[in-house]
Amino acid sequence: MSKILAVGSLAFDEIITPFGHSGKTLGGSASYIALAAQKLVDKIGVVSVVGEDFPDKFLSKFTRRQIDISGVERRKGEKTFYWKGRYHNDLNRRDTLATEVNCLANFKPVVPEAYKDADFLMLGNLHPAIQQSVIDQMTARPKLIALDTMNFWMDTAWDDLMTVLKNIDILIINDEEARQLSKDYSLVRAAKTIQAMGPKYLIIKKGEHGALLFHGKNIFFAPALPLEEVFDPTGAGDTFAGGFIGKLAQLEDVSFNAMKNAVICGSNLASFTVEKFGTERLETLTKPEIKNRLQDFINLTQFEIELV
Amino acid sequence: MSKILAVGSLAFDEIITPFGHSGKTLGGSASYIALAAQKLVDKIGVVSVVGEDFPDKFLSKFTRRQIDISGVERRKGEKTFYWKGRYHNDLNRRDTLATEVNCLANFKPVVPEAYKDADFLMLGNLHPAIQQSVIDQMTARPKLIALDTMNFWMDTAWDDLMTVLKNIDILIINDEEARQLSKDYSLVRAAKTIQAMGPKYLIIKKGEHGALLFHGKNIFFAPALPLEEVFDPTGAGDTFAGGFIGKLAQLEDVSFNAMKNAVICGSNLASFTVEKFGTERLETLTKPEIKNRLQDFINLTQFEIELV
Repeated sequence: MSKILAVGSLAFDEIITPFGHSGKTLGGSASYIALAAQKLVDKIGVVSVVGEDFPDKFLSKFTRRQIDISGVERRKGEKTFYWKGRYHNDLNRRDTLATEVNCLANFKPVVPEAYKDADFLMLGNLHPAIQQSVIDQMTARPKLIALDTMNFWMDTAWDDLMTVLKNIDILIINDEEARQLSKDYSLVRAAKTIQAMGPKYLIIKKGEHGALLFHGKNIFFAPALPLEEVFDPTGAGDTFAGGFIGKLAQLEDVSFNAMKNAVICGSNLASFTVEKFGTERLETLTKPEIKNRLQDFINLTQFEIELV
Repeated sequence: MSKILAVGSLAFDEIITPFGHSGKTLGGSASYIALAAQKLVDKIGVVSVVGEDFPDKFLSKFTRRQIDISGVERRKGEKTFYWKGRYHNDLNRRDTLATEVNCLANFKPVVPEAYKDADFLMLGNLHPAIQQSVIDQMTARPKLIALDTMNFWMDTAWDDLMTVLKNIDILIINDEEARQLSKDYSLVRAAKTIQAMGPKYLIIKKGEHGALLFHGKNIFFAPALPLEEVFDPTGAGDTFAGGFIGKLAQLEDVSFNAMKNAVICGSNLASFTVEKFGTERLETLTKPEIKNRLQDFINLTQFEIELV
């Protein structure tokens, strides 16, 4: 079984939707990535940083699932990253009400010895130089390095971003980020431009409109599952990334065909995350539920047609 | 081979996009529906109305393809429906610069004898009472009646719309229209509400984000093909409808499985329409081109997965 290393934030999220208020709940990219990937593989290590205020009950959400948190630094006298946001009625737009970067500001990830040879490396959204520093600590080149980033780093750390992009296999970003990175509105042209920056594979997430996987001239599309109700979209993108890398690790295969499976799997898990606040739904999610919903995805997308 | 009756507008369109100005070109729902369906079946009749100003060269686009225009009324002393619009740079939004309803204002469709027993009836966007008057002229109930409508009729002719919805099989509208008709933001819930109004089948078109087919608890999704460049989106929705009904007529099958094929076919043809102004691309489109692009749709959406 392959080993996954996930690097990203652990956070307090406070989420307000038309359906309610989450209170201070577990958030951060590494939370969703690890909890999603754990549905698929056993060996997952997390590298992150939290403050003194981060409760043991949050850490136990990982340890009780055998997720290795020996790479999570707990800083005395500092506070954990905190984000508060309010979604609009359509749940497609949100306003940030508060961001306190706290201990994440000078995060220096240290990869534990046991994960320096991880087969799969998922770099959640962080400063691109920090992401590069993780790659530099690996003793063997992982089979696959995936990376998420955001507009902020395109604005403030362009050169570092260009450097790390040359050293990864797949970039996983949303449509708005792809357009800013490529300076092109057309996602098909954007994909070409971005692949020329380094990553041979690219996933462009379009939220409720699904996700596109690009590799050279090949394009594959995974829809989002149409849902009666989206309760809280927070973490859907990171869940997608965790399900994606988890599926590849489970299959021990990084071919384009395996990636098709993996984007469907990512979309599957993300469709659960949005049903409750934060990581709540991921925590209770069972393998039979995932399998049933995979059948929904098959029904939604597969057809038989005569080529006439 | 099944017979299709298409009822809708024939028009002059004047389209401005970031790529150019179309001049006065052939437009109207019946144009796209008929030219799309003609790629799939031979027997298509059009019922519409044009003014004295409508040129023979536009009518010959239909007659040279054996599309029956005996149901197209040519009004002396009147002018043809005219629409002028300008698309924004992203081609997702447009401003209407001029609309002259002209002879379409008092359009009274008369179905030719030879098409009163059509197997497939496609009712393009018109006043719902006018759409109902066409159904009333049929001597035998068609195998399938499909209908398009728009927000304007929901605002101004709600009762007539509710009446005609009870007499059709499938409603084909866009997401914004589905939300207004159902008074619900969630498309899955909207689909339930709309099916309770009459049509057992519903297609919700989402433009560049594809189209959803609903029937009871079944949902199927056809993506739009990701394109490097969209030149002119005008007519994509009507092309989709024409390709959809054309495929069902070709298959002589109105099962849900046949409809899966048909929405893929509609999406396929629509992906060509947006490559040039108005009906230009549909006019030159060949069967091998359609077949090649069908392979693109298969590559884009089909996957093999183990249910584990």
